[in-house]
Amino acid sequence: MADLRVPTLRWAEPPEGPVLLLLDQTRLPSEEVELTVTDVPGLVAAIQSLAVRGAPVLGVAGAYGVALAAARGFDVREAARLLAEARPTAVNLGYGVRRAVAAFEAAGGAGEVAAAAALAEARALHQEDVEDSERMARLGRELLGELLPGGRYRLLTHCNTGALVSVGGGTAFAVARAAHLAGELRRLWVDETRPLLQGARLTAWEAAREGMPYTVQVDGAAGSLFAAGEVDAVLVGADRIAADGSVANKVGTYGLAVLAGHHGVPFVVVAPVSTVDLSTPDGAAIRIEQRSGHEVTELAPGVPVAPVGAQAYNPAFDVTPPELVTAIVTDRGVVTPVDHGRLAEVCSRSRSYESPSGNGMMDA
Amino acid sequence: MADLRVPTLRWAEPPEGPVLLLLDQTRLPSEEVELTVTDVPGLVAAIQSLAVRGAPVLGVAGAYGVALAAARGFDVREAARLLAEARPTAVNLGYGVRRAVAAFEAAGGAGEVAAAAALAEARALHQEDVEDSERMARLGRELLGELLPGGRYRLLTHCNTGALVSVGGGTAFAVARAAHLAGELRRLWVDETRPLLQGARLTAWEAAREGMPYTVQVDGAAGSLFAAGEVDAVLVGADRIAADGSVANKVGTYGLAVLAGHHGVPFVVVAPVSTVDLSTPDGAAIRIEQRSGHEVTELAPGVPVAPVGAQAYNPAFDVTPPELVTAIVTDRGVVTPVDHGRLAEVCSRSRSYESPSGNGMMDA
Repeated sequence: MADLRVPTLRWAEPPEGPVLLLLDQTRLPSEEVELTVTDVPGLVAAIQSLAVRGAPVLGVAGAYGVALAAARGFDVREAARLLAEARPTAVNLGYGVRRAVAAFEAAGGAGEVAAAAALAEARALHQEDVEDSERMARLGRELLGELLPGGRYRLLTHCNTGALVSVGGGTAFAVARAAHLAGELRRLWVDETRPLLQGARLTAWEAAREGMPYTVQVDGAAGSLFAAGEVDAVLVGADRIAADGSVANKVGTYGLAVLAGHHGVPFVVVAPVSTVDLSTPDGAAIRIEQRSGHEVTELAPGVPVAPVGAQAYNPAFDVTPPELVTAIVTDRGVVTPVDHGRLAEVCSRSRSYESPSGNGMMDA
Repeated sequence: MADLRVPTLRWAEPPEGPVLLLLDQTRLPSEEVELTVTDVPGLVAAIQSLAVRGAPVLGVAGAYGVALAAARGFDVREAARLLAEARPTAVNLGYGVRRAVAAFEAAGGAGEVAAAAALAEARALHQEDVEDSERMARLGRELLGELLPGGRYRLLTHCNTGALVSVGGGTAFAVARAAHLAGELRRLWVDETRPLLQGARLTAWEAAREGMPYTVQVDGAAGSLFAAGEVDAVLVGADRIAADGSVANKVGTYGLAVLAGHHGVPFVVVAPVSTVDLSTPDGAAIRIEQRSGHEVTELAPGVPVAPVGAQAYNPAFDVTPPELVTAIVTDRGVVTPVDHGRLAEVCSRSRSYESPSGNGMMDA
């Protein structure tokens, strides 16, 4: 039987000194290979190449990166700066870095004790991520039960939001997995998610490992699934959520939200509150990472599909406005309808918050 | 200087007997190779592998296929049946086959005279296709001038609709090219069009040959272009248009139509009246070709991207309802708004029809 634990990211301390081990997601699903990262530039390169990717795990990776710099005696502030800028749209990365740096500074800002404090903070964030995934999976499944009474629903998802984006079960995928375990999932429609095919490569890999009923389609085929009434809800993650509830997520998400709105299908975002950036007022203020056009014009390095010299537009993310989002499921409760006040209230809750109704959903 | 004529399809008569020569579109843009087709099963294979593809040229290919069978003494009725069923959604294919068969039968149904009649009909269809492209390009450009006064517009297109789908200039791409030649095209946004990348491979190749300003993006990135106000109109072709104006076109088209409607951007279909099938009452009656899932799960034969055993949903086309279509530009005039009566009236016009206003547009 296959090992269902996904070793997305782990800290290890071999005799040569502490390292971060990362499952290289660029080589999935054909190969399962761990990268050994010994310093922050190596971690930045792994983050930028998307060997490690996904909102929650980037927070954990950022914190461990600070701990790694501290443990190996590198300049922690410089390491923090490099890490926080590795991917501009990913708010969790900066969040994890800031938490580890704060712990390091509070413990003296230098030396073994401070390094131990940074590592302890990274480990705390790691544990929180596991717990947050579990809470989002539960809250999200309860929300689907309310939105789609009777169960046996068909969910459509985009990109990868499972155990590979987290050291726990993930975000949107964790909800779909919980629905599957409860016997409520009829099918998971997986957008392949061009250009880097995180859906076909990674989500399909996770769904197959979990024994979930799933089907992959090209991103452009989602429309015909909606038109045929084959989608009961859309579940996606987020890379940054602005204060007004605008959601930056993998490019292609906005088109799905417009389709869902056109067809009256619930569009649900699943993300921990660490993905919410209340200092970004709205969608227009979210900085969108532009990536190399080669990701579009070459199927693999040196394997062109477009003519030589073809120009490509390759934003990593797009922004979905709050009016197209039915609900945001966080680890501290469900925000619905989505607006500034409700989002800020949920973000202000403590990690141990339990709503009176038990499902964390706000009164509308 | 590159030869700008695209030898999409041509009839030749070497000493060994008549043949059809097809530019193998599956090998573009890296190689320009002609396939030599000597019989109908070979032509059916070329059509099904998409070596030759696109609504108008499939009509011409079907007619030449009948002429080839007749000239080589094969069973013309069996050849016609094989050809007409090669791709179920492509109405032009059956149209070209029927025309050549009718000419063959009218000339006796056997022998050299009948074979010559079939070839003459194929050549007539070839010439009509060239002229139809020119008329659609002119009418489409005039329509854009009315919809987008001031010119210098940004057009978004999907799949490939240029000289490769036609023995003339094509459909939607021919309109964009006419706009470019008139100095009115600011940018052509080219959807890559998964799974077979006809946009990145073929439309980009044609745009580069024409010196047009173009940019390729993944299909999922179109939404962010609309959101940023970067798309002034969408131009697409069609593979079958039902009597109510429902448009079957390359999968992904419907999602673009929903986005265009959401953003108040004109959504224009360009297709000859031979693409209209008045015997298909509406979109629900259009049979959609389902293709192999390997086109989705493998980037090339034997190069998997999804896990072994992954199931894929791979419809070749989707259907856009008439209420999302701003106009249908045909070779006999512009249908707008799109409804059964206006579409039938335009289809009933003779090939030489010129409207009083000169642009063929109907009174609303």
